[in-house]
Formats: sequence, C-alpha cells, structure tokens
Amino acid sequence: MLDTIRALAKKTESKILMVVLDGVGGLPLELNGDTELATATTPNMDALAQQAQLGQVELVGAGITPGSGPGHLSLFGYDPLRYVVGRGALSAVGIGVKLGAGDVAVRGNFATLGEGRVIQDRRAGRPSDEKNAEIVGKLREAISEIDGVRVEVYTESEHRFVVVFRNPGVPLGANVSDVDPQATGVPPLTAEAHDAPSQKTAELVNGFVQRAEAALAGEPQVNGVLFRGYSDVPHFPNFDEVYGLRAACIASYPMYKGLASLVGMDVLEVEGEEDALTGKVAALQQAWDRYDFFYFHVKKTDSTGEDGDFHEKVHKIELFDELLPQLLALKPDVIAIVGDHSTPSKLKSHSWHPVPLLIRSDYGRKDAAQRYTEEEAQKGSLGLRRGTDLMPLLMANALKLQKYGA
Amino acid sequence: MLDTIRALAKKTESKILMVVLDGVGGLPLELNGDTELATATTPNMDALAQQAQLGQVELVGAGITPGSGPGHLSLFGYDPLRYVVGRGALSAVGIGVKLGAGDVAVRGNFATLGEGRVIQDRRAGRPSDEKNAEIVGKLREAISEIDGVRVEVYTESEHRFVVVFRNPGVPLGANVSDVDPQATGVPPLTAEAHDAPSQKTAELVNGFVQRAEAALAGEPQVNGVLFRGYSDVPHFPNFDEVYGLRAACIASYPMYKGLASLVGMDVLEVEGEEDALTGKVAALQQAWDRYDFFYFHVKKTDSTGEDGDFHEKVHKIELFDELLPQLLALKPDVIAIVGDHSTPSKLKSHSWHPVPLLIRSDYGRKDAAQRYTEEEAQKGSLGLRRGTDLMPLLMANALKLQKYGA
Repeated sequence: MLDTIRALAKKTESKILMVVLDGVGGLPLELNGDTELATATTPNMDALAQQAQLGQVELVGAGITPGSGPGHLSLFGYDPLRYVVGRGALSAVGIGVKLGAGDVAVRGNFATLGEGRVIQDRRAGRPSDEKNAEIVGKLREAISEIDGVRVEVYTESEHRFVVVFRNPGVPLGANVSDVDPQATGVPPLTAEAHDAPSQKTAELVNGFVQRAEAALAGEPQVNGVLFRGYSDVPHFPNFDEVYGLRAACIASYPMYKGLASLVGMDVLEVEGEEDALTGKVAALQQAWDRYDFFYFHVKKTDSTGEDGDFHEKVHKIELFDELLPQLLALKPDVIAIVGDHSTPSKLKSHSWHPVPLLIRSDYGRKDAAQRYTEEEAQKGSLGLRRGTDLMPLLMANALKLQKYGA
Repeated sequence: MLDTIRALAKKTESKILMVVLDGVGGLPLELNGDTELATATTPNMDALAQQAQLGQVELVGAGITPGSGPGHLSLFGYDPLRYVVGRGALSAVGIGVKLGAGDVAVRGNFATLGEGRVIQDRRAGRPSDEKNAEIVGKLREAISEIDGVRVEVYTESEHRFVVVFRNPGVPLGANVSDVDPQATGVPPLTAEAHDAPSQKTAELVNGFVQRAEAALAGEPQVNGVLFRGYSDVPHFPNFDEVYGLRAACIASYPMYKGLASLVGMDVLEVEGEEDALTGKVAALQQAWDRYDFFYFHVKKTDSTGEDGDFHEKVHKIELFDELLPQLLALKPDVIAIVGDHSTPSKLKSHSWHPVPLLIRSDYGRKDAAQRYTEEEAQKGSLGLRRGTDLMPLLMANALKLQKYGA
C-alpha cells in the first residue's frame, strides 16, 4: 500500500495536522459508566466533532495492545507487523545517538529494589530529570566497557535511560528477553538470548544489571535497573518521500522524537519541561509556513492512565481541549485527533481497545457522532479501521492523492 | 479469495441483480448539509431500503479514489490492486476491438486548444456522437500508420475515442506517461516512456498528437487530442467460471461494456441514446430468463457529479428511482444497489469517500438504515467493507455458496 500511496501522492499547498493524544482511549471504572474522555468537559473538541467525521482505529490488530512504537508506526502508515522497531533504537535515536550496524540499543527504567532484589517500584518514584542525569553519571563512571565491548549510557527523562553496546567487528544480536518482569513484588529477570548472535548481548545485559546495582547500592530509591526493548537499526521508506510531504514532529519526549526522526520527519525544538504544551503550540506556530504535515504529540493523557489516575487523565484531556483553539486558529486544511493506543486508568497500562479518531476537512460527510469520545466515535462514518488507514485518509482529505486507475 | 469462492460456488435457479449507480456517493455542499442522495426524492429506494440491509464500501482502500476500472473490478470481486487494467484496453474491448499480444490501446479525449496549444476545454464541449464519428473519420484518413506501425482510430462517445497501435513482430510497451495534463490553461504534455519497450509507443503517441492537430486545424472546437491510459491485454479469471453464473452486462457506455466483457460477461444490446434507461430496462426484461446474474449500469449519476451539477445529479438519482419498480417487478432473489466510486458534485471528480451499499434478499436482518443515503448507510448492518466483499455477499444471499469446511 505504501507503494500505491507513493505513486498517487501529489504536492499541494494544503496542510495536515495530526494530533496524537497518547493513550487517550479509556474505559469506564464501572459497568456502563463514562470513560475519561466522556467524563471530561471538552467544549472545543465537542464543537470540532460536530463538524468532523469520527471513527475508531485499531493500531495493530484486533485484541492486540500496541506499544508506543507500533502504535505510532501504524498512525504514520507503516504496518507495525512488518516494520518492527525496538524501543531501545527509538529512544537512542530520540536523544540524538547514532546507531551503526551491529550496535544494540537497550531501553532501561530505573527501579526501586527492596529486600532480596524484589521490585518495589518499576519507575523508582519517577525521579526528576536532574536525578536521572546524576544516576546516569554514576553509571557512566562505573561501567564504560564490559568484556571489551563499549558501553554508553544516556539519560532520557524521569525514570528512563538508554544503553548502547558497541562491539566493532563482531555484530551484536538484539534477540534477548526482557529484564523487566513488568510486575512488582518479584526480582528482575535474567536476560536470555534467543539466538546465537544475541548470546553476547544477553551476557552484556546481565553484567550491566549486576554492576549497576553495585554502583547504586547507596541510593535509597533509584537502586536498580530494568531493561526491555533491545534493538538494532531499522530501515523505513522515508515518510517525506512516500507521501511527498514536508513533515515536522512536535513532541517533547525522546521516544516520539526518535520515531519521527527514524521515518524521516524533521524534529522541531520545543521549549519547556515535560509535556511542554505551551512550547509545542509555539513551535507549531513558528513552523507553520515551512511544513505541510505536523505530528503534534501530547504525552500526559497516557502517563496519567498508566498511573491509574482517572481524574488526572480527565484533567489532562481538558488541558488539551483548552489549547485546541490555538491549533484551529492556524486553519489546518485537515486536522485529525487520534491516539497511538488506549491507556485506560482502570488497567493502568496500554490496552487493545480501539482509539477514537476524528478527521475534520472541507470534504466530510455528516455523521451522527457529536463528541470525541469512545462511545460517540462508534457512531461515526469512518467506521472501525486499521491505524494504517489514517495517513491515506488524511492525504485524501487534503486533496493530495490522485485517482487510482482510469 | 477467488479460489475459495470458486470452490464453494454452486448453480441454483436464483437470480442476482447488481445495480451500479456510477459515482453515486456524494458530499453536502455545506457543512452538515445533505448529499445528492439525501436531497433526492426517492420513494422507491426508500421502501426498498426499509426491507434491505445497508452498509458502505471502499472499492480500493482507505483514502484511495478509484478510477472506474478499479471500482468496477472491485465490485466484480477482483482485487483492483492485483488486477490492473488500463482504460485504453477497457475502451477498446468495449467497442468490440480485439487486442492481441504486443498491441497497445490508448484512450483519447478530444479537446479544444487555443493560442499556443493551451487547453481550453478538456472535453471539446462534449461533442455529439455524430461529430465524434466525423472527427474520427478525418483522423483515420490522415493517420493510418506511423513509422511502419499500424494505427487504428475508433469512436467511443461524446469526447472519447480510442487508438490502437499494432506493431506485429515487435511488441509495444504500455508504460508511457499521459499527454492529458488533467488541467486547462496549459498545453498537452509530451508522452515519455518509462521503460525500453515503451520507447516506440511514446514516439507513436507524440507523432499521433502532432498529426492529429494538423488534421484538425480547421475545426473550431474539436482541434486537439489528449491521451491517458495506455494498456496491453490483461487476463482475468473468468467471472462465469469463478462464480458459476451466467452473467450479463447491461450498460451503454463502451468502457463498462468493455470491462464486463474482459471478465467474461455477455454484453447485451441496449437500444437508445446515451444512458438509455428505457432500453436498459427492456434489455433486462428480455434477457431475464437466460441469465443468473445481471450487472445493470447507470452512468448519468457520475457525469452530473463530474460536471459539478448537484441538482442535476439529484435529478438523475430520482430518474433511476422512478424506474426501480420495473426492476423489482422481475422479482430478483437478490438485488444490490451500489456505486463504483463516489463523485461528489462539490469536487467535480471521483473521490475516496465510501459508497452506500444496499442488499435486499429474503435472508436479511433488520437494520437501522431507512434510506439509500450515505448517512443512513452508516447505520446499516453491513458495516464498512472493501468492494471485493460484495460478490461473496450476493452469492451467499442468493444461496449460491456452499459451506466452507466440514
């Protein structure tokens, strides 16, 4: 399908704004109750929904809970079952680290370990970015090589960091099992290799865990490391080249910037801390004339869901709704609001549930959906679709696709 | 999927009538307004919809605007991304021209050129079929061969004609760029070959354009030619053999007859000019006992959309509605109403929007859709589907498909 789109894409003056509210889809806390979206007071999204077409997207497939990488790849039109990219590679690229052939990037979480190495907090109380940098400094001092392999440690944000193993001459495999058990009350797992080239990588990972715990033994809260997502370097058909778009990424968290960069978007500078919504809007305004396509990422709708904080997720949705008029003031020819997956507070994790999709252009039909909520989206004219349908729909609504066949 | 259907198809006495209202899907002129279908007064379709099941079809894929060829192939069950057929081949076959290996058929439009060869009207004011035949006569006289290659010119209708190049011994390629820029105010493009076997074809096309303009220099309106859609001969699994149906095509425009003929349907004679609805109904009545499947094509719902004439498109829909009782009087076991793509008057062109689908048989469930309109179809039980789902659904509703597996 990417080849078909590439053949049909044409350059026009129209502008597309894709807003990704990370993990926005939710669940009611009680049977037949309201979700976070339905609970939120969102006058601006409501008004937009009444001029727009709604539907639902499944990012990977029925019943499949997408990670953020596959979820975003799907939104960008890349079948996530075909284009597989590890979170480690995303994170590394997101912080500007270049990966070469044979290098492996690994994504880490700082954790709090108790008696018997039992995990008490998989995010070590979400340390500040300053604390993160301090801990990374300690690790860099303690671990610069293991068994002759170069080890690089990079700070990401809060509890997240990235390790890159470089073994020039002998390529490392990335087919290694997670150290992170994705549960508390149990100790970290031992990494195991699933193929021969990954044997060395598993040893490096386990060696890193051991030496990191030794180096952090004096820390009260940030005293352990968990790994999941090992990856070598993926290759993508370039987003700009497939769609004929000058595309910009407006995001503040490294992984999202990394993903956008991997597919070929320009990653714009965003001023501000954490989600930096004000800085994102400013970046969008400043870059508006220079690009045709904007990927605008809002993170906190996901984080609050992961924390199981229903009311705070509602609040983050309302915060986005308040800034929506500034986005609409730019008069995008096509605006979409969507998520990369659902993150119901009830589950405190990503989930398989479809995500509501809204598309507003001058070429929409009337539909019955009146709000950007899971329930209303079911009434929308766009139906229930794969996430990879989104980019062709946005291109079409922007009148950027030629007719297929005579 | 065609292999599966072929294995399951069984012959029965039941009859299927597939009505294709060309380009029937539309858009409102203003936000949240009514489409052409919703505006039309259609008591007969309304009554049918209340006994039928509705849904929406996408003929090629999300966001993809289908040409008439791919749109129809999808309706007939052939994946249009797999079965690629040029408009030239369709047009040639539709007027009874046999194509051999190595021949290339090209579809032409007569155009009006002004000062500096600038295109003033891409359809030369839609000349009458008589004028078309007169111009084709002039071209035949002026151009019977170019560089030793045989050149045949055929009239199609209105502004459309077909050229066939035959170069026995040395096959011609069909991978040539369009002469038609699909815009006015610019001169025709020079055809370019995209591969070596098409080099000769590009030269033939450019030579034809030059000689045609010389031959038509005295004409006030029909004084230029535009080409798009070059094709050699495609091969299809035979419709009758896949579905076990004796299938008949009732259409008046050459391209639709050509397509039906390519997949193996019998093309019935239709009396009358242009859309010839009365002649089509008569042809259907006369052939009713001899076939199991009828493809009944209505063209003007598309032409009026392409002309951007909302009210005339509404009128053409109403004209079809008036003759619907004559179709129903034949008591088809299954009747479907569908389009091969949308052609909103607002866009004056084909579009990517899904097309409403109606299926009436004795084996339908109650659904919420009350009219054959885009908005009501969204409420229908058939959902939003690919066009290639239609034939299996019609076969099933006609009780012509055996169980799959034990």
